[in-house]
Amino acid sequence: MTTDFAATKRQFLLPEGVIYLDGNSLGPLPRGVAERLQTTVADEWGQMLIRGWNTAGWMDMPARVGNRIARLVGAEPGSVVMGDTLSIKVYQALASALELVPGRRVILSDTGNFPSDLYIADGLVRTLGDGHVLKTVAPEAVEDAIDGSVGVVMVTEVDYRTGRRHDMARLAAKAHAHGALLVWDLAHSAGAFPVHLARDGADFAVGCTYKYLNSGPGGPAFIYLAPRHQDAARPALSGWLGHEAPFAFDLDYRPGAGIERMRVGTPPILQLAALDAALDVWNGVDLDDLRARALALQDRFIAAVETACPMLTLATPRDHGQRGSQVSFRHAEGYAIMQALIAEGVIGDFRAPDILRFGITPLYIDEGDIDRAAAILARIMTTGSWDQPQFKARARVT
Amino acid sequence: MTTDFAATKRQFLLPEGVIYLDGNSLGPLPRGVAERLQTTVADEWGQMLIRGWNTAGWMDMPARVGNRIARLVGAEPGSVVMGDTLSIKVYQALASALELVPGRRVILSDTGNFPSDLYIADGLVRTLGDGHVLKTVAPEAVEDAIDGSVGVVMVTEVDYRTGRRHDMARLAAKAHAHGALLVWDLAHSAGAFPVHLARDGADFAVGCTYKYLNSGPGGPAFIYLAPRHQDAARPALSGWLGHEAPFAFDLDYRPGAGIERMRVGTPPILQLAALDAALDVWNGVDLDDLRARALALQDRFIAAVETACPMLTLATPRDHGQRGSQVSFRHAEGYAIMQALIAEGVIGDFRAPDILRFGITPLYIDEGDIDRAAAILARIMTTGSWDQPQFKARARVT
Repeated sequence: MTTDFAATKRQFLLPEGVIYLDGNSLGPLPRGVAERLQTTVADEWGQMLIRGWNTAGWMDMPARVGNRIARLVGAEPGSVVMGDTLSIKVYQALASALELVPGRRVILSDTGNFPSDLYIADGLVRTLGDGHVLKTVAPEAVEDAIDGSVGVVMVTEVDYRTGRRHDMARLAAKAHAHGALLVWDLAHSAGAFPVHLARDGADFAVGCTYKYLNSGPGGPAFIYLAPRHQDAARPALSGWLGHEAPFAFDLDYRPGAGIERMRVGTPPILQLAALDAALDVWNGVDLDDLRARALALQDRFIAAVETACPMLTLATPRDHGQRGSQVSFRHAEGYAIMQALIAEGVIGDFRAPDILRFGITPLYIDEGDIDRAAAILARIMTTGSWDQPQFKARARVT
Repeated sequence: MTTDFAATKRQFLLPEGVIYLDGNSLGPLPRGVAERLQTTVADEWGQMLIRGWNTAGWMDMPARVGNRIARLVGAEPGSVVMGDTLSIKVYQALASALELVPGRRVILSDTGNFPSDLYIADGLVRTLGDGHVLKTVAPEAVEDAIDGSVGVVMVTEVDYRTGRRHDMARLAAKAHAHGALLVWDLAHSAGAFPVHLARDGADFAVGCTYKYLNSGPGGPAFIYLAPRHQDAARPALSGWLGHEAPFAFDLDYRPGAGIERMRVGTPPILQLAALDAALDVWNGVDLDDLRARALALQDRFIAAVETACPMLTLATPRDHGQRGSQVSFRHAEGYAIMQALIAEGVIGDFRAPDILRFGITPLYIDEGDIDRAAAILARIMTTGSWDQPQFKARARVT
């Protein structure tokens, strides 16, 4: 192992007394971000004004930052571009993918997918009409459900509740064998473990950056389009910055070169600057090291919790190959238990109806954190201290 | 006039030696923004981490900031929400509007509309298929082209090149008389002059915030949905934060209450914080005062330029009622002339093929700026100093 994880941990500003196991929802603040934002605001926006689009390189940021993400997800240079939100990028990917398989009218997904992906797909088939449907099956039934009627398989690699992981290479191969395309949602994958989009046959992929890539609340999403599809794919959300010549202001749309066509409107430069600074954390990180250490930390947490808290049921697969970077347990009173944990400085989150989620990333989590978090959880469960009105009252949780 | 425009000017950080006449493209930096971003990053994201969504009120920001915008555009409370880019919001508005007029398949727009709106509409009709078309006519022909075949009239109030302004109340009345709906793009209206969405019968409206609302590069867009349509409108881009209960994680989409349904994905909190701080500039600003003073400054600029530079042709209507907040002149060498102006500290911009644009807003532009800018332009035109290779070489312009 060549990666120095003590050094990566020092690159985050973590609050005193907090063990942060919710980077799968919102990554913590990397040190360089605040300073970079000050530069972007005061020196670029403030001094360059409109000239910043060229002089400060704002206009090229979606592609430049996209190339930094590409390296983390095994994508070819020039195949990833930043912008919008994950939901918007799902819409773009689905609509473009469907157009590449004329005559196919079925989007296949699974009931473990993040609801927003299903909502977006549902909205798209409604807009398309003409017999298009969204078909959902159980996660373990996706592979068998791929047949010649399916146009696009849309799967989130890691289940946001259980942390169960799909075998994406296998799904891609099956999809391609039946003439379908694969849209791969990397929300809980990018920055969580090595991803090999090019090697594993992805057609489209989408992901967010505010989880394991630590870009901050509302950081921009990304979209991957395999080079073999770039010339043929027509963007459904055809905005001016995806045009071949945005500043010609032609009345007719002509898609831009390569991945640029998946851009839509004006990019969010402040959020992109925060992301760009946050990506510096990855310099010197070997993703295989990250994966090996994440699994070791997860196993350590699972063992400690299962020993001390038999009332919690592991929801995450034990098989390393079927696991993402989070560990989830089930308990009917999961909501209150999580509130009690948060009150003691162990921040995970809750997902209805009964899931306690703990994101475990070696970038800023070490053995000491794992042991302390497990000990606090054990104390809460054995004393029953979660069973208090202030923990059971439901506020909106994110 | 009750508004103190010397005070509003002091609220902007303008570079020394620059006269900034490009706020119609990117507004300058208001004083409070940098500090607000530091708070959002260090105290909220850094310390609250995931809890910021509730504790710092991030989750409600799209609606809360939307209500601040609503006041500036004459909209009812609870009718405006922030998010995404203007292009995305155009797509949402068009798709939802079309669904409210079943059987109508024509989107009517004009050739003076911003190309991105046309591209988005073109993409939408392609996705909808089934005979949907985008029909464009000359700007002055829009009103006459509204007939019973038209489902949605999509018009940008102020022409991005000439500054010519549509009579939106009149177009709304005509559209409604023929059973059509109106989508009103406020890109060059919001913050530029008083807008009366509710009074003037808008059905949908969309706008951006990085121009006259000074939210910074890539600031979020907004969408308005008239209260009378809120229960019936179905969002086409149906993301999880537009769901009735996002954190129930239901598999089926149910649109959220009122304007909330037009939300899509995770809101860009850093950009929203910048916008929220930038909106403080508007405290104490009377929009009728703003309009009166903007017209006076425009007239002063037009008079000075027409006197000294007969080779420039006014592209903006002389009639106050047909004018937005920018003044444009035509010249075949407009690009080089603008570069020469910028080199002398007068920042406007150029729009192909021959338009020099000057955004004139009293928030930070006064008579001294107007006189100096006109004098510098006069010198450049009379000496012909624009006719140099470094000004004629085309770089990408924004």
